[in-house]
Amino acid sequence: MWNNTEVSKLLKIKYPVIQAPMAGGPTTPELVSAVSNGGGLGTFGAGYSTPEDLDRILKKIRSLTDFQFGVNLFVPGQYEVDQERIKQISEIMRPYRKELGISEKAEYEPIEENYNEQVAVLIRHKVPVISFTFGVPGKDSVRELKRSGAVIIGTCTTVDEAVDLEQNGIDIVVAQGFESGGHRGSYMKTPEKSLIGTMSLVPQVSDNVGLPVVAAGGIMDGRGIAAAICLGAAGVQMGTAFLTCKESGAHEIHKQAIFNSKEDDTVLTKMFSGKLARGLCNKFTSGMEGYGSVVPDYPVQNSLTRDIRRASAKKGETDFMSLWSGQGVRLSRSLEAGQLLKQLVEQTDFIFNNVMNPD
Amino acid sequence: MWNNTEVSKLLKIKYPVIQAPMAGGPTTPELVSAVSNGGGLGTFGAGYSTPEDLDRILKKIRSLTDFQFGVNLFVPGQYEVDQERIKQISEIMRPYRKELGISEKAEYEPIEENYNEQVAVLIRHKVPVISFTFGVPGKDSVRELKRSGAVIIGTCTTVDEAVDLEQNGIDIVVAQGFESGGHRGSYMKTPEKSLIGTMSLVPQVSDNVGLPVVAAGGIMDGRGIAAAICLGAAGVQMGTAFLTCKESGAHEIHKQAIFNSKEDDTVLTKMFSGKLARGLCNKFTSGMEGYGSVVPDYPVQNSLTRDIRRASAKKGETDFMSLWSGQGVRLSRSLEAGQLLKQLVEQTDFIFNNVMNPD
Repeated sequence: MWNNTEVSKLLKIKYPVIQAPMAGGPTTPELVSAVSNGGGLGTFGAGYSTPEDLDRILKKIRSLTDFQFGVNLFVPGQYEVDQERIKQISEIMRPYRKELGISEKAEYEPIEENYNEQVAVLIRHKVPVISFTFGVPGKDSVRELKRSGAVIIGTCTTVDEAVDLEQNGIDIVVAQGFESGGHRGSYMKTPEKSLIGTMSLVPQVSDNVGLPVVAAGGIMDGRGIAAAICLGAAGVQMGTAFLTCKESGAHEIHKQAIFNSKEDDTVLTKMFSGKLARGLCNKFTSGMEGYGSVVPDYPVQNSLTRDIRRASAKKGETDFMSLWSGQGVRLSRSLEAGQLLKQLVEQTDFIFNNVMNPD
Repeated sequence: MWNNTEVSKLLKIKYPVIQAPMAGGPTTPELVSAVSNGGGLGTFGAGYSTPEDLDRILKKIRSLTDFQFGVNLFVPGQYEVDQERIKQISEIMRPYRKELGISEKAEYEPIEENYNEQVAVLIRHKVPVISFTFGVPGKDSVRELKRSGAVIIGTCTTVDEAVDLEQNGIDIVVAQGFESGGHRGSYMKTPEKSLIGTMSLVPQVSDNVGLPVVAAGGIMDGRGIAAAICLGAAGVQMGTAFLTCKESGAHEIHKQAIFNSKEDDTVLTKMFSGKLARGLCNKFTSGMEGYGSVVPDYPVQNSLTRDIRRASAKKGETDFMSLWSGQGVRLSRSLEAGQLLKQLVEQTDFIFNNVMNPD
């Protein structure tokens, strides 16, 4: 059977379908648990969570499911707080602030580093699956996490990153293709130079590491799952498909915007956070086009745009929101996550049983 | 069986594998006929051919195969001969000319429009399959070509283009994903806004047209073929995989460069021809980066870089050659085209018979 893969076995799940860890709202405990209860792996995106929030959320998830689930962390990176850039970009964004009726001066609030505390919370809660984006936490750290019983997933966008993850003791590698929504996980070359389509990335990663590979990027239905398995993947990770589910915490107008979009309506932009990410184009992404050389590093820019994004959402207008989305928008559906998973499995089964061997 | 698709039937071929029409050298009559003799569809890229060359080549192909084959034409588009841009870009390229020891002044040779003559040659030779890139020749023209007995293939990079092709009476649509090498076939929006990964493009195109869809972009082996079929395609078109075949007329150092490359070594550039295309990065692509707003339209820029590309090839250096390639470079092989096709079919059969239903 297509679903009985190394990924299913390692993660102890029925179907090798991971709901992507979409930090910043979409991955509610309700979404995570619904996916896990349905036989996939729900994953909470904890990149922006304080240790206290994370503790509370983990308790909530545990209360909603007895099955395996995962938590994703951002591996902290170097960044510069460039006052000159902050001044320049703030000036560029001033008209948007005015339009939204918020303080015209952008305030940069230094981010409190809490990665080690986040890790400590995950270990204390014995979180069964821990995934990382934006790098690898280092061999020793990986070993320690594994001692806590966790299975460790890393994210790559190139073959070199996949090999690096393997060398650092990661258990499973997510190969994130060009099509995928949200932040690019690239950490070796620049993300702009690490844009490989899923169709091309998966077999090349799979040929160059011994680890099981999970395909991500553009996978929205059973056709995508079956295709990923053919390419050599042992599982899939799906973000956008779950973002529009009923249990997702994404803003209702974000979901609607996805339903109303076409496959060529997304753009790659650094302007929301300082890191390259894919989302639906809107007034903000077009207005900020061309300022890539001025944008401060992540997480500085993320802090500078926070109140803009919030004010836009509060007004019920998508103009200045980060509408993260992959390219498969025409295939998005409004379902409960359990229903979606059921349909995904049925469609994949159908392809494997019929399309493949119609005779 | 996976290979008995609508594309196989319409094109009267054994395996729905089309060797992409790579204009400008790679698609020799030897390559085209080897693919057709092996049960796929060989296609000659006639975009740059004079009617006289085309006539000669068609006779040669007919002498080498009794099977179906195709010819691809570029649909002519509007362009501007902007003397200011020609001056600016020539100045930028001057150091390269000096380095190569050719005339330091770039000469723009106006292109003789020969599209109608090309079409006449194809009709006279009763070419069984005619494919188009950069647009659609219009309903009446399509109808006339069909009356000659030809099956007509169009190229799209978005759903809107696919729908447009269908409305113009095309028989089969090639969905060209982001990963693919060579020129982008986009003709509605700008090619920069029409970059959809194959994994995402194929199912969305397939849901929105009644025509059989051929997947292109990043497909290099049986895994890619099987994946494309799962996504809803009724066939595949493969360029890079055939470019490195023995019979391909691509320059030997172009083939070697592909063998020595990694998946993140390609770039999208307009600087060789004026139209966006994917190839291996080299001294020319990096040196010309950032001049996108100055580059003259296709085919003006193509004419301006011709002697640069030729001189580079003649010196046996890839620095200034257009090294067209898709992203699947790590999967490229040096085989005879018939052997490659045989391996592709065996690998696809294997996946459909075993990976899919291992029980």
